[in-house]
Amino acid sequence: MEKSALQKARAAYQPKLPAGLRGGVTIKEGAPTQSAGNQEEIKALFPNTYGMPIVEFVPTDQPCICEPMNLGIILSGGQAPGGHNVICGLFDGIKKLNPAGKLYGFLMGPGGLVDHKYIELTDAVIDEYRNTGGFDMIGSGRTKLEKEDQFESGLKIIRELGIKAVVIIGGDDSNTNACVLAEYYAAKNYGVQVIGCPKTIDGDLKNEQIETSFGFDTACKTYAEVIGNIQRDANSARKYWHFIKLMGRSASHIALECALQTQPNICIISEEVEAKNQTLDDIVTYIAEIVAKRAASGNNFGTVLIPEGLIEFIPAMKRLIAELNDLLADGKSLDGLTSESAAIYASLPESVAKQLTLERDPHGNVQVSLIETEKLLSEMVGKKLAVWKKEGKFVGKFAPQHHFFGYEGRCAAPSNYDADYCYALGQSAAQLVANGKTGYMAVVKNTTAPAAEWIAGGVPITMMMNMERRNGEMKPVIKKALVELDGAPFKTFAANRDEWAEKTCFVYPGPIQYWGPTEVCDEPTKTLQLEQKA
Amino acid sequence: MEKSALQKARAAYQPKLPAGLRGGVTIKEGAPTQSAGNQEEIKALFPNTYGMPIVEFVPTDQPCICEPMNLGIILSGGQAPGGHNVICGLFDGIKKLNPAGKLYGFLMGPGGLVDHKYIELTDAVIDEYRNTGGFDMIGSGRTKLEKEDQFESGLKIIRELGIKAVVIIGGDDSNTNACVLAEYYAAKNYGVQVIGCPKTIDGDLKNEQIETSFGFDTACKTYAEVIGNIQRDANSARKYWHFIKLMGRSASHIALECALQTQPNICIISEEVEAKNQTLDDIVTYIAEIVAKRAASGNNFGTVLIPEGLIEFIPAMKRLIAELNDLLADGKSLDGLTSESAAIYASLPESVAKQLTLERDPHGNVQVSLIETEKLLSEMVGKKLAVWKKEGKFVGKFAPQHHFFGYEGRCAAPSNYDADYCYALGQSAAQLVANGKTGYMAVVKNTTAPAAEWIAGGVPITMMMNMERRNGEMKPVIKKALVELDGAPFKTFAANRDEWAEKTCFVYPGPIQYWGPTEVCDEPTKTLQLEQKA
Repeated sequence: MEKSALQKARAAYQPKLPAGLRGGVTIKEGAPTQSAGNQEEIKALFPNTYGMPIVEFVPTDQPCICEPMNLGIILSGGQAPGGHNVICGLFDGIKKLNPAGKLYGFLMGPGGLVDHKYIELTDAVIDEYRNTGGFDMIGSGRTKLEKEDQFESGLKIIRELGIKAVVIIGGDDSNTNACVLAEYYAAKNYGVQVIGCPKTIDGDLKNEQIETSFGFDTACKTYAEVIGNIQRDANSARKYWHFIKLMGRSASHIALECALQTQPNICIISEEVEAKNQTLDDIVTYIAEIVAKRAASGNNFGTVLIPEGLIEFIPAMKRLIAELNDLLADGKSLDGLTSESAAIYASLPESVAKQLTLERDPHGNVQVSLIETEKLLSEMVGKKLAVWKKEGKFVGKFAPQHHFFGYEGRCAAPSNYDADYCYALGQSAAQLVANGKTGYMAVVKNTTAPAAEWIAGGVPITMMMNMERRNGEMKPVIKKALVELDGAPFKTFAANRDEWAEKTCFVYPGPIQYWGPTEVCDEPTKTLQLEQKA
Repeated sequence: MEKSALQKARAAYQPKLPAGLRGGVTIKEGAPTQSAGNQEEIKALFPNTYGMPIVEFVPTDQPCICEPMNLGIILSGGQAPGGHNVICGLFDGIKKLNPAGKLYGFLMGPGGLVDHKYIELTDAVIDEYRNTGGFDMIGSGRTKLEKEDQFESGLKIIRELGIKAVVIIGGDDSNTNACVLAEYYAAKNYGVQVIGCPKTIDGDLKNEQIETSFGFDTACKTYAEVIGNIQRDANSARKYWHFIKLMGRSASHIALECALQTQPNICIISEEVEAKNQTLDDIVTYIAEIVAKRAASGNNFGTVLIPEGLIEFIPAMKRLIAELNDLLADGKSLDGLTSESAAIYASLPESVAKQLTLERDPHGNVQVSLIETEKLLSEMVGKKLAVWKKEGKFVGKFAPQHHFFGYEGRCAAPSNYDADYCYALGQSAAQLVANGKTGYMAVVKNTTAPAAEWIAGGVPITMMMNMERRNGEMKPVIKKALVELDGAPFKTFAANRDEWAEKTCFVYPGPIQYWGPTEVCDEPTKTLQLEQKA
């Protein structure tokens, strides 16, 4: 396998560990915990894994010695930078406790456990992947672990390999399922532990216990790099408006973080759109007004950041889509649309309207994810400006360019932050297993401080749960963290956006640096810094 | 102006200079030169700037002292990383020769000279832009300097500011025009010198005298970073084929360099398509065959690099477009297409066919640049695979994703290579002026060696010229450097591509590093390394 110079040099990076995980490690337990909501229901569903204490790892003079442990590791869901380092941390953690311990990687996601597809992760394998991006070491997948026959099938290979615990790296759903599995194995007294690790580039798996989910740091910095480059181009050429869509279906954390890093002229935050009950026309008018204002001072250029999931956060669009789904499923004509929806439908560019009615998924539903929101918005802004031009309200030019960034950042080589954070998560997971824990998520806190001061530990997954309706059924789930409009990151953005809109305040973050001054290489995200300061 | 941590830290970088430009500098002249072709015609057109010697700067113990020089600088054409460093090098070069010298920046391109729009570039301005990307210090523009009234208008402000020489940073056309201007001022005995600097991210301004044009290094490394990230994602998710279009209308250097850096499964080189007289169907078949082959071994994923200008290099497409232009301009029906063109037209996806006939530029011509080649190809590949599936020749899945990278790299902060190279070019330009040269291009050679061993100097622009037909007229132009099919970079690619296609040999270059090991931070492009080795 040919490697780039950076891959080779970066392989030697030794992630920084919290003091609590460096030498001998002992465990400190807190008071019993409660779930985030619906305590009685969650407790009834998780009798064996409910109410456990938060734990923290602290240094001790005693050396770490325990029986050799065999562990299994699973990557679940979309790629996020740092996944390999969680595995490396787990591997080193197992070996530190007893070099005879083994780590097995289940292949292509949770399905690997069910179907008994795995490899042993030896020193040679692990060393190939230290500090690298991607999930290609063992692959990932989207199989949901939620049925008893899956749990029982998994148990067979777990027994065969003498596995003490399974570590599942995933987002909110995967961690919920990790807890369901932990509860099942505990209820059956199978003696198999299950530990979760918080991953998502979207940043929507966080709460009082989880400062951030891994990958968010690296992905946002990668997007911010190219957004900054585009902004510098916009400011040099002075003739294009760049509409930049950013990955993140359910939450706008990425768009917000990128806005804080790059100070674009416009950034739309889905959660605000929903809270303010804004219409598509409201958003289009907001953008067009800024374009017109900048044009009036001779600046026919700018940047607009758009979260991927925007359309589904616009209440009126959501209603239109729901009505379309009903009408089209029944083979009825569009005459059945309510007048509000009919008006919105009529306002859409032809290509989008066509797509909404013609291209449906196997269930007959409109395929919202196929809508090119960045082009939809720029087209509608262009139309509005053309009207304003005739009315004399807009004097200038409007030439849009379009970009969508997602795959560009999900598998970037982890930043120092993510490399360190993930490695510590992996080591924490090993310690949670060694200390007999199950139904826990590995966590590392205080990460805006230098790594030595980070605090590693574990949190019962049930503590983050409440009951929510999913596909018509009430289910125990980890609450998704959307952008909070009264949180410090959004408030900072909101306090500055008018200035950023009118003036050109672009910041150019540049590419992620692995060597060099610490303020360049080791800073966490603006989101995290602002949240911790607040 | 708020700055990122990287911007602040990077401002302090002191570009490495060739030994010949470090202390006292003296000039070494070679033998008289000839133009690349059409010697008699070029000589007749440039009686005052033809036949001058190549010059080289060498160290001397004599200190640099000369009269204070005032210079003007112009950025011409598209952005390229390092432009600001040329200006900084020029500024420092002027000040080193005599601190009383001044540098004026003409605003928004050559038009700034004609329209007398300029600013003085003081220490304070220069220091804001050291080692930064973009052309925003003074802006750029595409006004062509080619008419006498422009030259005369420019002369007025040149006289007013006491400017000794104008330095024009641009591509092949801009440097040709720089030479025309130099010749004009020389013929008129105005005593104003003109110096060019070789810039283009496309990499098509190079020859025996110019190793590379600046910006190519940084832009390619930025594209290779995100392509590498996408490849890692492809290799982790194992379910998408990524079609990645890369900027570069007339030459495929960027696509080729990115392929050498990242080892994708497929890279199309326009120059090869033209040389082999390939059809659109040939290209589609080539891609589909590789997709099918990989699918047969269970690999339903991969990457395809496509140069932006591909369509215009496909001989049959070129003929179709020419026929369409003729027919549509005369308001005739498409029945007038030749049978070959009619067949190609019929094979195009509906959206592309529509675009070719409906959307025309103000001159009535088909707008080739609007064709989304990456989607055109993936759609046609998908159709072919669907046919093959029915025939049992393809068993697998084909899910494409699309990307286009251009603006993401044109204004990136220059790599160490470009920062050093550009700074040396600027200092060379100052020395060329101090030595009384005009009609020269600043050059720096031997750049695959450590910077101290680089050789700085100047080359008469006429030396790179020949006569070519442009818009129906024979004109003196600098020969555009297309990808040479018998050159080492292409041959290296061609020797490896079958292996890269079938196996997964992805390399992940990662982001440009400014600090750290020299093999990570200071390596020139693969293209340059292979060319120099050959």
